Amino acid sequence: MDTTVQSWERRELGSFFHTFSDLASLREDGPAIVEKGDGAYIFDTAGKRYFEGNSGLWNMTLGFSETRLAEVAARQYAQFPGYHTFFGRNSKPTIALAERMLELAPVPMSRVFFTNSGSDANESVIKLLWMMWAAEGQPRRRKLLTRKNAYHGATVMASALTGKDYVRAFGLPNAEIVTLDCPHSWRFALPGESDEDYSARLAARLEQQIVAEGPETIAGMFAEPVMGAGGVIVPPDGYFRMIQPVLQRYGIPLVADEVICGFGRTGHLWGAQAVGLRPDIIVASKSMSAGYFPMGAVMLSADMDKRATAACELWEEFPHGYTTGGHPVGCAISLEAIRIITEEGILDNIRKVGPVFQAGLRTLAEHPMVGEARGLGLMGALEMVADKKTKTAYAGEYRVGDRIAKAARDLGFIIRPLGASVVLAPPFIATLDQIGQLLDVLKRILDDVHADVNRRCA
Amino acid sequence: MDTTVQSWERRELGSFFHTFSDLASLREDGPAIVEKGDGAYIFDTAGKRYFEGNSGLWNMTLGFSETRLAEVAARQYAQFPGYHTFFGRNSKPTIALAERMLELAPVPMSRVFFTNSGSDANESVIKLLWMMWAAEGQPRRRKLLTRKNAYHGATVMASALTGKDYVRAFGLPNAEIVTLDCPHSWRFALPGESDEDYSARLAARLEQQIVAEGPETIAGMFAEPVMGAGGVIVPPDGYFRMIQPVLQRYGIPLVADEVICGFGRTGHLWGAQAVGLRPDIIVASKSMSAGYFPMGAVMLSADMDKRATAACELWEEFPHGYTTGGHPVGCAISLEAIRIITEEGILDNIRKVGPVFQAGLRTLAEHPMVGEARGLGLMGALEMVADKKTKTAYAGEYRVGDRIAKAARDLGFIIRPLGASVVLAPPFIATLDQIGQLLDVLKRILDDVHADVNRRCA
Repeated sequence: MDTTVQSWERRELGSFFHTFSDLASLREDGPAIVEKGDGAYIFDTAGKRYFEGNSGLWNMTLGFSETRLAEVAARQYAQFPGYHTFFGRNSKPTIALAERMLELAPVPMSRVFFTNSGSDANESVIKLLWMMWAAEGQPRRRKLLTRKNAYHGATVMASALTGKDYVRAFGLPNAEIVTLDCPHSWRFALPGESDEDYSARLAARLEQQIVAEGPETIAGMFAEPVMGAGGVIVPPDGYFRMIQPVLQRYGIPLVADEVICGFGRTGHLWGAQAVGLRPDIIVASKSMSAGYFPMGAVMLSADMDKRATAACELWEEFPHGYTTGGHPVGCAISLEAIRIITEEGILDNIRKVGPVFQAGLRTLAEHPMVGEARGLGLMGALEMVADKKTKTAYAGEYRVGDRIAKAARDLGFIIRPLGASVVLAPPFIATLDQIGQLLDVLKRILDDVHADVNRRCA
Repeated sequence: MDTTVQSWERRELGSFFHTFSDLASLREDGPAIVEKGDGAYIFDTAGKRYFEGNSGLWNMTLGFSETRLAEVAARQYAQFPGYHTFFGRNSKPTIALAERMLELAPVPMSRVFFTNSGSDANESVIKLLWMMWAAEGQPRRRKLLTRKNAYHGATVMASALTGKDYVRAFGLPNAEIVTLDCPHSWRFALPGESDEDYSARLAARLEQQIVAEGPETIAGMFAEPVMGAGGVIVPPDGYFRMIQPVLQRYGIPLVADEVICGFGRTGHLWGAQAVGLRPDIIVASKSMSAGYFPMGAVMLSADMDKRATAACELWEEFPHGYTTGGHPVGCAISLEAIRIITEEGILDNIRKVGPVFQAGLRTLAEHPMVGEARGLGLMGALEMVADKKTKTAYAGEYRVGDRIAKAARDLGFIIRPLGASVVLAPPFIATLDQIGQLLDVLKRILDDVHADVNRRCA
């Protein structure tokens, strides 16, 4: 391959099948090739620097030059560079990580296994629930509760759990999915309805749906503590406190998808702690390895462990697992990432910088274009509206989110467009200065885009 | 954590939820903790050395001390330690790997994207096929053809594609799966039936099943070139040559699951080349990164690329992707693993050692206990029978495969039990001496286990 003949951009277009990439933008702008990093910054092939306001995909939480993670990876590669956890075999870093996860769990948890991603962790949970219910004589318990705007991954069933319109492209969701309301006060609470009243209404509606479907057909409920890719939706106060008794009444396990929230994103170690969620099963990924290695985990409560193990006894084993799940290098990296987050001041930093970030976003809510500024810790979103009073959304053709994100990129800040919203998830190492710069830039861009859109509307 | 108080074995049992691990054996023997490697050998915590006759799970093909892989990992961690391939962004190692995969493909392929595993690569293909067919006005084309004894992964739909009895534990396969015959001459060909005649019969039977299901309901067929976890089933001569015209007649794309076969296992770079398979889509994983990093890939032919891209245009994008798919470190490692395999004599080694390994297995077929010795390149299996003439299987209670594998482990050789069979897949770096020792040990163990089982039968 002669790299002088073709640019990396042309080579990319000639070989890569694009995932989650707007094809029109690719035609217009071409791909962006990124090649190095420094702290919270990445650099493209032209040497342009960007503040990574989304931590990659929420996951590069310790930035792009955390030498301690690279060092543990090198040590583990030298010690024992890869193995599996089948047939009763295991590796020390895998065991140490399992123990550490149990120590840190937001509610008492009993046992852990590892996967390569959040998607395959959620798939593992679905299989485990189906196996458990069938073994308990309730094979009809196969339906899964999820919520509009939820994101649970990209494998088939994880996509089916994802409450986004685009899953219709795949003929999903399938009949095993029951979609609940998105708990988003600003958008869906009734005029004057308090958070508590709204939560109570959602809990009553959940009970109606369970009864309508037949509780004897429901295997479990999946929920992100704070919805991530759905647009950073923090549930109303009391939401989980009120829906959990309903689930318990019908024996429905609650799975906390902590892929985004877990390990500090909300300013709490777990999203569950931020929103009063008491999970039966926890799924983790992303920040767990700070994006340095594909990692996912499933944690089971004592009750789930006991019931799932009883089911496994019937089949002699849990006939499930991933080749590289519990990879010793991934586990060594995760142990170090978790150590850095919990013992080297990173969680403290999120707790210092997060409130400043949130306050700044709330100030931007005063902008005439912004309908809602929302978030928790180091995750936030701005939702733009054509009319603040009626909350009327901008027509898709204005591509408001895309414009804001593109303007930010031109100024060296990466943020994520999502319809008429933008999503922000700075690395956990972000400084007050960096957050201040991000907020300043956003303010300027909102003014520019607002003026531009108004001109076009006129 | 005080490591002196509890052994690693006890710590493992106290924290880990076991995957694909026989619970009775765990109770009896406890877990085995492995902690270092050297070439084709691994060492447990007691310092005992084992020849890894299964390359871990087929994947640690370059052994356990390939410093060149650790070095490229370290270089890439220092250069750029992680990123995604969404939103039109990409990294150099990812592009270079995509290009290299296209150069090496067994038939012309057009575009590539990356995942974390074979499971999620197969899930990606299912979604892509469903999206493509729906966009082409054939939304009913959702059924997937697979084969008895196939193994395609552990996520829900990949499990559904897996033609093993244990998937019933999860209430699988579901209605979208159509299971075809396992193409295994020794077991299923009629007396005196030639490979060609057997293949022709399987092709005719395939056509019957397609017509019975309705071709307008079938999205694609998945097939391992040589079945791996099903017991190393090499299809009869002519099998793919004869079934492919049937698939083409009904417009059914053929997906080659090269997770195990790809990158040398059969003595060919691709299993497809070994068995005359011309895939429309290729899925790869395992040897691609030699187990040093979770990696999967999907390659699309020009026709699939064009049709899938047309479908994506309708939705503005391919609304699919994995956070760590195309991870720059995983891609850098894979580039180096592929370079070592193709340019540093490893494929040559497989071609030298593989035939000796196969010849040795065929010699063991003369053993009174062995019904069939089979395989290709560096993958093989021995299937034990109670009666060689009638091919009567041993009753499960004799646990013949388990006994052989356990005896081998006691002697320092790891092989994989599978019912009354054992499966072998030595690392690609295995020497003639090591293969000779493995075969010698197997001979001894067969004698011992045979005598022991005969005593018990008597």
